[in-house]
Amino acid sequence: MAKSTAADGEGQRPPRVVALGGGHGLYASLSALRRVTTDVTAVVTVADDGGSSGRLRRELGVLPPGDLRMALAALCGDDEWGHTWTQVLQHRFRSEGELHGHAVGNLLIVALWELLGDSVAGLDWVGQLLGAHGRVLPMSSVPLDISAEVAGVDPERPDDVTTIRGQVACAATRGRVRSVSLVPEEPPASPQAVKAVREADWVVFGPGSWFTSVLPHLLVPDLAHALVTTRARRMVTLNLSPQRGETDGFRPETYLEVLREHAPELGVDVVLADRSTVEDPEPLRDAAKELGGSLVLDDLARGDGTPRHDHDRLAAAFERILAEG
Amino acid sequence: MAKSTAADGEGQRPPRVVALGGGHGLYASLSALRRVTTDVTAVVTVADDGGSSGRLRRELGVLPPGDLRMALAALCGDDEWGHTWTQVLQHRFRSEGELHGHAVGNLLIVALWELLGDSVAGLDWVGQLLGAHGRVLPMSSVPLDISAEVAGVDPERPDDVTTIRGQVACAATRGRVRSVSLVPEEPPASPQAVKAVREADWVVFGPGSWFTSVLPHLLVPDLAHALVTTRARRMVTLNLSPQRGETDGFRPETYLEVLREHAPELGVDVVLADRSTVEDPEPLRDAAKELGGSLVLDDLARGDGTPRHDHDRLAAAFERILAEG
Repeated sequence: MAKSTAADGEGQRPPRVVALGGGHGLYASLSALRRVTTDVTAVVTVADDGGSSGRLRRELGVLPPGDLRMALAALCGDDEWGHTWTQVLQHRFRSEGELHGHAVGNLLIVALWELLGDSVAGLDWVGQLLGAHGRVLPMSSVPLDISAEVAGVDPERPDDVTTIRGQVACAATRGRVRSVSLVPEEPPASPQAVKAVREADWVVFGPGSWFTSVLPHLLVPDLAHALVTTRARRMVTLNLSPQRGETDGFRPETYLEVLREHAPELGVDVVLADRSTVEDPEPLRDAAKELGGSLVLDDLARGDGTPRHDHDRLAAAFERILAEG
Repeated sequence: MAKSTAADGEGQRPPRVVALGGGHGLYASLSALRRVTTDVTAVVTVADDGGSSGRLRRELGVLPPGDLRMALAALCGDDEWGHTWTQVLQHRFRSEGELHGHAVGNLLIVALWELLGDSVAGLDWVGQLLGAHGRVLPMSSVPLDISAEVAGVDPERPDDVTTIRGQVACAATRGRVRSVSLVPEEPPASPQAVKAVREADWVVFGPGSWFTSVLPHLLVPDLAHALVTTRARRMVTLNLSPQRGETDGFRPETYLEVLREHAPELGVDVVLADRSTVEDPEPLRDAAKELGGSLVLDDLARGDGTPRHDHDRLAAAFERILAEG
């Protein structure tokens, strides 16, 4: 357990960490953070329009539950109870029929939403079921769509910029994503997410799909304001490799440039990157400095050739960074 | 709480009661029994082929979960936790799409079955989730179909006998059901259900859809053998009114005649009927006597004109009967 980073003398309080993102990136970040502190809050993108989540939002008009379910699973209790219910929530039906591909946890979360009429209360109930080590919140109380300005969708006309809509379409584009925005444009933030960011000691961005999971938080006005003005320290964890489509051809510093373009007022204290993914650290160090932060290089990858973070290594890096304050 | 009916001198042990049936009838019986003893086991028909259950068994090849879910709901814990999760399990999706009509608990039970590969273990996990006051077991480990011999399906040829297949078709037939059988014909009993019947102090049949929920237990060979040979006392709770289709035109004693035809060796100790539904008690008393039992008339109906058992009144009647041993 890292020592507290609180400046108010409550030396024994565990650090309050808010992790922002969605999907597998947030899963990795939460799997590491739960080893470092007992006070984790995930604030999750709600713009997914693919798979089980996409079908549920279209059929029932609800928030896409999938990334929220994944975040809850990452925080699940350590005992047989927590593990079993997490497996149930992560279970997907496989058939030739109408349930094929639906994750059980998505259906359960949606049922709680319909029953309680309150997305945060519904997620808290699932968190209780799993014995979750932390809380999972949606970044907005309404389902969102990603809209992206993409250059070179047609390889023969590389400079033409096209607007693409939907997380799936943006993540899979063959063009170069220049910027993203949200539809509706100024969505309401989840008040609990804003409060969590305001009261945090650390806010952690990424890893994850940069345009469709990490940046969207900065496009929700009240949440962006809280992220810019919070007394918390801010950390950005870079991805291990460019994502086919969305961030094809990204250099490590490109992530920070894009972050700055989407949130010019956001200061960053620490940029964390895997040592092996950074051939030349100087441009990255400069980009971090421009955001007001310092670069930390560490061994974060699994080391098995897959571009995935090792949860223990990521936890060790987080612990060192939090301990240094 | 009734005093124990055990003959083995364990005077402080609560009576072990096994309730047989399915659907709303079993729900009523369990809702009453939970007030009378802390040791209830439901043994549930698995021949439903309609609604959410029918779709799930067709799509995924599983036992129909709906009646099992209902039984679990009837036994749910008394606290906010038990009530909330029961509401979630009973919640049905309403939409224009593929999830319409599915009960969330059915999906959850099926997911546990797929995950654990064991129908009883899956139901025990849901029972734990709800803090259930008792255990719910399927009567067979394989999905079953009801096949009925029905007279007068065509009103113009009232003596012609037709074979009708499927619980929904049998329950809704316009003809007179003469007898039912199961497909496959000699299905394997759930071993835990057989054990529960063998170790019970009381076995309670009905109320419920007579041909499609109450009699099927007697057509599963190992379960029927246990029901005939158990040292437990046997009670039959009659329905409050004939069921449109399935038992149209039944007099109270007809239920017992049909029971006897399907299980000639089964003895019955007590026949419980609502006083207001029995105009002439003599033929019913005679029919009970032919099964070896006595007739108990009591006030069991809600008294609001609906043909539904009042759970408190049914509980009071059960308590008196169990106390008399």
